[in-house]
Amino acid sequence: MKNRYEFGMEMLKKVDGHAGEAVVAPLGDLGKILVETFGDIYGREGLSLREREIATIAMLTVMGRETQLKVHIVAGSNVGLTRQEMEELIIHTVLYGGFPTAINGMNLLNSMTLPGEVK
Amino acid sequence: MKNRYEFGMEMLKKVDGHAGEAVVAPLGDLGKILVETFGDIYGREGLSLREREIATIAMLTVMGRETQLKVHIVAGSNVGLTRQEMEELIIHTVLYGGFPTAINGMNLLNSMTLPGEVK
Amino acid sequence: MKNRYEFGMEMLKKVDGHAGEAVVAPLGDLGKILVETFGDIYGREGLSLREREIATIAMLTVMGRETQLKVHIVAGSNVGLTRQEMEELIIHTVLYGGFPTAINGMNLLNSMTLPGEVK
Amino acid sequence: MKNRYEFGMEMLKKVDGHAGEAVVAPLGDLGKILVETFGDIYGREGLSLREREIATIAMLTVMGRETQLKVHIVAGSNVGLTRQEMEELIIHTVLYGGFPTAINGMNLLNSMTLPGEVK
Amino acid sequence: MKNRYEFGMEMLKKVDGHAGEAVVAPLGDLGKILVETFGDIYGREGLSLREREIATIAMLTVMGRETQLKVHIVAGSNVGLTRQEMEELIIHTVLYGGFPTAINGMNLLNSMTLPGEVK
Amino acid sequence: MKNRYEFGMEMLKKVDGHAGEAVVAPLGDLGKILVETFGDIYGREGLSLREREIATIAMLTVMGRETQLKVHIVAGSNVGLTRQEMEELIIHTVLYGGFPTAINGMNLLNSMTLPGEVK
Repeated sequence: MKNRYEFGMEMLKKVDGHAGEAVVAPLGDLGKILVETFGDIYGREGLSLREREIATIAMLTVMGRETQLKVHIVAGSNVGLTRQEMEELIIHTVLYGGFPTAINGMNLLNSMTLPGEVK
Repeated sequence: MKNRYEFGMEMLKKVDGHAGEAVVAPLGDLGKILVETFGDIYGREGLSLREREIATIAMLTVMGRETQLKVHIVAGSNVGLTRQEMEELIIHTVLYGGFPTAINGMNLLNSMTLPGEVK
Repeated sequence: MKNRYEFGMEMLKKVDGHAGEAVVAPLGDLGKILVETFGDIYGREGLSLREREIATIAMLTVMGRETQLKVHIVAGSNVGLTRQEMEELIIHTVLYGGFPTAINGMNLLNSMTLPGEVK
Repeated sequence: MKNRYEFGMEMLKKVDGHAGEAVVAPLGDLGKILVETFGDIYGREGLSLREREIATIAMLTVMGRETQLKVHIVAGSNVGLTRQEMEELIIHTVLYGGFPTAINGMNLLNSMTLPGEVK
Repeated sequence: MKNRYEFGMEMLKKVDGHAGEAVVAPLGDLGKILVETFGDIYGREGLSLREREIATIAMLTVMGRETQLKVHIVAGSNVGLTRQEMEELIIHTVLYGGFPTAINGMNLLNSMTLPGEVK
Repeated sequence: MKNRYEFGMEMLKKVDGHAGEAVVAPLGDLGKILVETFGDIYGREGLSLREREIATIAMLTVMGRETQLKVHIVAGSNVGLTRQEMEELIIHTVLYGGFPTAINGMNLLNSMTLPGEVK
């Protein structure tokens, strides 16, 4: 049976891909807690991974956490969100967080090449 | 053809029900701008209303905007989110916003009777 | 010559009226530091008191600090802002902070009777 | 050997007392995750409980999370912080978060009777 | 008669100059909504453009939105705010948002050459 | 007798070292107010400098103010916090501010060589 860390790392790879592993590697104990808690929560039933990434991208956009937003734009793509859907999601945040964070999020998305896209 | 305000009010009623109208009524010009912008954005294609409310509830939870969260928990219910799904969504926010805002959001949800529930 | 506290208290009374004194009274040393720093800054040249309150009301609205916003809506009125101008200012915040904080600010303003208004 | 939940609940009682249990009771799965993560982190070595509460009270003050601040003012008292030290800590936050959140935190502290104090 | 977009673009050029156009160009539909809403709000009566930029610069400073602050420091200059007045405004934010965001805002202002200044 | 500025500058050098002076130098009047207020508050009794930096590092982490966090990680080291203690403190913030700001804080700490460390 997998322990919390092993399960969390498996979930992290599934959702965030190599970007997730790269985030965790230098973090020491914080990385361990992150992997375990990530697995505990993303591994729960009740919302699909697609729905979890919709929530995550919206939150990270309005909070202005761009380093993490970049990771979760890739994650969104991994779990089935298209570029157009993520653009739409960032537009949606305007109502609740105003234009500055939405502009920053959109510029970040525009600067990225998603998995499967040709540069 | 409906103008922006009429379309927005129709969309607001569909999503937020009477709670939405009650929010707008005392706001004067701000209410007008809210209704029109709400319609412009919620009326766009690309994300379902269910997905828009997943994003909205997550954002309002981490931002600690409880008055609006209350309105959008009802809206979530109106567009098909179950109480369990909204609990799950609030749990999901812990990773990105920490425990205090998640606790406040969960207590708010627990205090509410959703459309169709018996008190 | 007035010391920093005396000057600050005079400035606080001029801007915030009795509401300002009521804020400071229970705060002990924090109140002393508040009065002195308030005087240091509001007493500077370069911006009018009207312009300082425009900035203050906008900031407190987007930050969601409603207890202080209430004090500074009265202060705004004391230094010459009309109710209509403060409504306009709250509408202006929508672009930068989104609708939830603007709605909360407008509802707060609507709930208040300003100096010189008849209830 | 205690599992994560049992250890977390023991730690929560030690730090937050009955207030902590009251927070967790209505939260369902979120409460379980809170207790476990609280135990994982507060149970770590490297900082004393007194130092952890200094950090916690400062963070909750500047974030304006008053419901949780109330719980952690009691917790601070439980792990050895005096009322004067907590007043000092709230004054310290002015430099980093400004006056509004410090004023709100001080008023909250002033409104509370700490363990061992006579009303 | 101009439509919302045309009016908004005219207003954006008047306030933000070329910097505003550069912001909008890569944003697709978000840019369209931004231009229209910007025009709707900046085009309202009740506050002068100078007063609107005072509010905007203060808000963006305390929210730490530096990319937008840079645009609105130029806008402030376009509508008549001097460098000294903007310095004064950033000093004013200390009371409400603390020192870190004010320091960041001041360093940004110091790094910029305003329209009409010689480098 | 030292005036407020002289005392503040002495305290700033003691806590922040040369990094503190470098922060203040380009800030004009804002720098003067910062030095004076810093001295007023850090010079108070009731909390040790070590405890003040514990509070400061925690606040700056959850608020995502990385430029200032960098200065206060050096300050923490100056007043006796070890790298391990600061790592522990950043891990502690996860409970209250979530993972993104903790990850950013830890990466910042990891990127720095503290006084007395060999690169």
